[in-house]
Amino acid sequence: MAPNAENLTAVLVKTQDLRLEKRPIPEPKDDEVLLQMGCVGICGSDVHYLVHGQCATFILKAPMVIGHEGSGTVAKVGKNVTHLKPGDRVAIEPGVPCKNCTACMNGKYNLCPNIFFCATPPDNGNLCQYYTHDANFCYKLPANMSLEEGAMMEPLSVGVHACNQAELKFGDNVLITGCGPIGLVSLVAAKAMGASKVIMTDIVDHRLEVALKAGADVVVNVSKGTIDDHEKQIKAALGGNLPQCTLDCTGFESSMRLAIRCTATGGTIVLVGMGNSEMKLPLADALTREVVIKGVFRYRHCYPKAIEMVSSGKANVKQFITHNYTLEQTLDAFDTARTGKGNPIKVMIHCSK
Amino acid sequence: MAPNAENLTAVLVKTQDLRLEKRPIPEPKDDEVLLQMGCVGICGSDVHYLVHGQCATFILKAPMVIGHEGSGTVAKVGKNVTHLKPGDRVAIEPGVPCKNCTACMNGKYNLCPNIFFCATPPDNGNLCQYYTHDANFCYKLPANMSLEEGAMMEPLSVGVHACNQAELKFGDNVLITGCGPIGLVSLVAAKAMGASKVIMTDIVDHRLEVALKAGADVVVNVSKGTIDDHEKQIKAALGGNLPQCTLDCTGFESSMRLAIRCTATGGTIVLVGMGNSEMKLPLADALTREVVIKGVFRYRHCYPKAIEMVSSGKANVKQFITHNYTLEQTLDAFDTARTGKGNPIKVMIHCSK
Amino acid sequence: MAPNAENLTAVLVKTQDLRLEKRPIPEPKDDEVLLQMGCVGICGSDVHYLVHGQCATFILKAPMVIGHEGSGTVAKVGKNVTHLKPGDRVAIEPGVPCKNCTACMNGKYNLCPNIFFCATPPDNGNLCQYYTHDANFCYKLPANMSLEEGAMMEPLSVGVHACNQAELKFGDNVLITGCGPIGLVSLVAAKAMGASKVIMTDIVDHRLEVALKAGADVVVNVSKGTIDDHEKQIKAALGGNLPQCTLDCTGFESSMRLAIRCTATGGTIVLVGMGNSEMKLPLADALTREVVIKGVFRYRHCYPKAIEMVSSGKANVKQFITHNYTLEQTLDAFDTARTGKGNPIKVMIHCSK
Amino acid sequence: MAPNAENLTAVLVKTQDLRLEKRPIPEPKDDEVLLQMGCVGICGSDVHYLVHGQCATFILKAPMVIGHEGSGTVAKVGKNVTHLKPGDRVAIEPGVPCKNCTACMNGKYNLCPNIFFCATPPDNGNLCQYYTHDANFCYKLPANMSLEEGAMMEPLSVGVHACNQAELKFGDNVLITGCGPIGLVSLVAAKAMGASKVIMTDIVDHRLEVALKAGADVVVNVSKGTIDDHEKQIKAALGGNLPQCTLDCTGFESSMRLAIRCTATGGTIVLVGMGNSEMKLPLADALTREVVIKGVFRYRHCYPKAIEMVSSGKANVKQFITHNYTLEQTLDAFDTARTGKGNPIKVMIHCSK
Repeated sequence: MAPNAENLTAVLVKTQDLRLEKRPIPEPKDDEVLLQMGCVGICGSDVHYLVHGQCATFILKAPMVIGHEGSGTVAKVGKNVTHLKPGDRVAIEPGVPCKNCTACMNGKYNLCPNIFFCATPPDNGNLCQYYTHDANFCYKLPANMSLEEGAMMEPLSVGVHACNQAELKFGDNVLITGCGPIGLVSLVAAKAMGASKVIMTDIVDHRLEVALKAGADVVVNVSKGTIDDHEKQIKAALGGNLPQCTLDCTGFESSMRLAIRCTATGGTIVLVGMGNSEMKLPLADALTREVVIKGVFRYRHCYPKAIEMVSSGKANVKQFITHNYTLEQTLDAFDTARTGKGNPIKVMIHCSK
Repeated sequence: MAPNAENLTAVLVKTQDLRLEKRPIPEPKDDEVLLQMGCVGICGSDVHYLVHGQCATFILKAPMVIGHEGSGTVAKVGKNVTHLKPGDRVAIEPGVPCKNCTACMNGKYNLCPNIFFCATPPDNGNLCQYYTHDANFCYKLPANMSLEEGAMMEPLSVGVHACNQAELKFGDNVLITGCGPIGLVSLVAAKAMGASKVIMTDIVDHRLEVALKAGADVVVNVSKGTIDDHEKQIKAALGGNLPQCTLDCTGFESSMRLAIRCTATGGTIVLVGMGNSEMKLPLADALTREVVIKGVFRYRHCYPKAIEMVSSGKANVKQFITHNYTLEQTLDAFDTARTGKGNPIKVMIHCSK
Repeated sequence: MAPNAENLTAVLVKTQDLRLEKRPIPEPKDDEVLLQMGCVGICGSDVHYLVHGQCATFILKAPMVIGHEGSGTVAKVGKNVTHLKPGDRVAIEPGVPCKNCTACMNGKYNLCPNIFFCATPPDNGNLCQYYTHDANFCYKLPANMSLEEGAMMEPLSVGVHACNQAELKFGDNVLITGCGPIGLVSLVAAKAMGASKVIMTDIVDHRLEVALKAGADVVVNVSKGTIDDHEKQIKAALGGNLPQCTLDCTGFESSMRLAIRCTATGGTIVLVGMGNSEMKLPLADALTREVVIKGVFRYRHCYPKAIEMVSSGKANVKQFITHNYTLEQTLDAFDTARTGKGNPIKVMIHCSK
Repeated sequence: MAPNAENLTAVLVKTQDLRLEKRPIPEPKDDEVLLQMGCVGICGSDVHYLVHGQCATFILKAPMVIGHEGSGTVAKVGKNVTHLKPGDRVAIEPGVPCKNCTACMNGKYNLCPNIFFCATPPDNGNLCQYYTHDANFCYKLPANMSLEEGAMMEPLSVGVHACNQAELKFGDNVLITGCGPIGLVSLVAAKAMGASKVIMTDIVDHRLEVALKAGADVVVNVSKGTIDDHEKQIKAALGGNLPQCTLDCTGFESSMRLAIRCTATGGTIVLVGMGNSEMKLPLADALTREVVIKGVFRYRHCYPKAIEMVSSGKANVKQFITHNYTLEQTLDAFDTARTGKGNPIKVMIHCSK
């Protein structure tokens, strides 16, 4: 246990009002562990709550601890916990489902309507020094992985789940629209899972360059030219074929329109990014070719695979951590994430000194 | 062989110009059979070609024999044909794929880009007296099935494929939007395949009554009330639950909007009907709940199942044949189908006297 | 609550020593219901524990309440229970998994190594007057189903799971070896789930007659003739084809040998019955034809489907209840089940007067 | 075309009688290509035909050209061939299915009962200078792959299909019994497809060393110790867990017994090797844990994936080519393969000088 029983905690009191508060260190319940938090990455949704007080249909109504992309070191274990011990470093899956509903019983626990999920109102997150969590959702990091990488398991799990939803098979070509953090983790997940060529699109050259460095085979700047041009570029990159899987990591109508145009007959489009609520699309163009359209809601069963990806060297997520802050610098960290100054990909907050 | 070598044939010469012509009786190739045509049903697409000269992206550029929902009696077999003999009555699957492309090699022959398909320009259909077809796509009818029922295997196969695409499992509840011929065959297919409750929607009371008679458990007239009302009616019919599978048999934006609203989390929406090309939809509402959206293009591997359904008594398709004509009355038959006078469901043409 | 707080209970004290004892009526925990037991069927495993004190690898080491095929009426609900209320009649799924292990998290809760399962040592069963059970594993019976039918949901769920494992699709032909209770419930499950022809084998004519009455299309007495003969009979019944799915409901080597010989290339064999531990088989004969061999361990997610089957009239399980006893007559009931006198299929004990 | 119309061809005239004969150069049919053969590897089945005149149920009844693991260079194309041109180097998939039967129509063309398959009696193989083959089963090699590697696509496809049958997913642990050529290609396929740890067994230390060099994480010499010991070693290597997938590449009862003991509950065993016809096994031990047992018959849809594996650098098959011979030295090559002198893994015959 920490010598000093103080627990510095980043609390989003209300829209535009993020503060560091000292809170008591919690005690783990029987099935929980107490974690000394290691790293917490900032997600787009965190910034959304800070700026708008809501994200999708979730609305901030009371002060909430922010942060859900976390890792930490076990400080104490509840009495039923056997697979972890103090000192173990873990990646924290932020959602703890009810285990009783139909979704849970069927193994699709990410769709549990009763799930606790860090930093989704009204549930508290884990950008703090000490935090308790269901031990079954804490995954031990192998010796060759850092706490920074541990925190990256959350976004990487989104990429893994996106590839699972796409039923990506060894040797498939993939189109990923959008080179933001989710596009990039989807890229490294797809490559680790056996994708052949991955083509990525964006409207900003700088982001396309990052994608190329991270392993994209071909990039297309879709701010230039027409959809016909983009289709031609994609086909040219694949020897005249269309990709079997498309992951839309933007959530925008224009990207989905490209996805519909450019996914192979019988292939799959996965909407990963959340953007436009209403979209006007030539849906029948895809559906009469039996292209399947799927979505992604967080992830399920993905943390072990994400950890294996990084520990085996098949996926590099460290490259996406561009900015680092201490817990005390949380407001600066959010400022960087919010403004995009310095072209951040992933802003990482280090909770332990 | 027919004593008189004349072959009365319904030829769509050009838009709005359907004629009966006498053509020679063809000879079957080695893998083909010559069929004395029994019955041919009129499909919405046939009427579309007659009225507009096109359907979806297919355009009538030259005279084409119309008709693709056919059954017949084997008159002669090609030298390689072993599973059929003269006198056998068969249902005719109108699409003959290339058997060499990727889609064919993977068993998804309905997606073959090189497929021959009756009465899809430029391929001739089979509304005539004598017609040759690949014997592998002629399915012998059991003794307890009529040629009228044989002709109904084509639309019923669409319903079977829709249910397959929906991954309909025993005990699932199903929402079917639209009570036209495709909605109705989807209903009887869904029931035969083990659907629990089937709820159907339409905007015309008469059609909803037909659906009820054909086995729908609950019907909703969506011309009355709001989408909120319709959602409540659907939930009320299912004890507070939403259906696992939705088959949209209208192709309209408003139906797809209801499908998105009313399909259970993790469920499947299948677009069966072809209507609006562009649709404005709250796609993310479905996709963040991991509802899968799929399409249907014709059918694959469905004829044997459709025949089993009818011969076992699990599906009644005879009830949908509301109007009957002889081949000589083809223009009257199309007139009935086109105008909807007399509330036709399926208009059937009898090619043999 | 019962006026008299006595709870007559059938306790298997040790091998060959089954007694009726009076025990206190238990209190339901927060997630549980107290049930006034309705009916409990006797299973082959119950008899095995009585006679041998063990079944497979499970060994009776201390007195255990017997019975796991039960139904009852809710007498009291724990404070967290919302979907049931006193007076509701329910079928009781006897296994309550841990909800935390890998199997549970993946939706395969029947494979949970920590599962509580009625009347599998050391867990107590429910052949008694009052019994508490996790409310999530109590399924409300519709008004048109009796408590006797409710008790039959347990064996019927085995049949449903067997068909699920076989990936039975509408129109498949099925071979079921063995016409005991499990063979018979598999038959009615297969038929309800859309099986075309079901062929059944046994070595006793009487049992084959029961199978025919219950809906088997063809039966084969495998005590007569050779495996070549049986193969011929099966092929003849299917127009020269082999069945796509085979359910071995005997567990014997000779049946599995027939299954290997007679399942279609690319089909599936499911071992449902437990019999021989070691079997000598021409395994490669099946595997080089890519026949898949699977097993069944109890069931998962099957109770709702089983209830739907019976309440919709698609499956008749009442026909299998051949003998009825009161709870007080439990020893007689087991005597009938053990000796097979009077050709019992299912012996049912009625716990309430 | 070759200036000299001679076509040196390795003909297995009868058991123990392999000869080089000069035959005419064939002409490609419309859908075929004429290939100048590059490399042909020797498979265990080739040696079996040479020594025993049969393999499994296939019996040599007339002289047959041997060889089916081939690659070549297109010399001439039939008039319907558009995707290949003279000079293209290709890997040759030796099986050409009928494209009309149920198996073909369903995409499982490897199970086609009418398939032509090189060097499976009575079909001629391709260990010769000039050979014609269906162009759709000739896969163009990318510039970074050699003809030797092209010939290795045949055994590698077996490994790919084995992994497909095992439903190998990223991050799964795998047990492979047997370190012969098929075990080794299965190893590199499994690793390329995302296997985490691969454990291999054999009874010969030398072969285990080869496996370690080729990427096996842990090897177990099963000639030492008991099955309990082997289970312990396997669990120890996987942190106390059992592998999800087991590929038996021996076909022996003892290996299948280990597979049954050591495959995780709910996992999959794939029988890849052909050995014992009858096996005595504790089948119920696997099946009551719902371990699925599958087989492999050749492969389907695997060549493109195998080529992608090697061209992307994810699989190294060159390492397995230990011995090289010219076509003229064919008898020496078979002698090496037959005797195992010099510990050959793959013996490769070069048909062009």
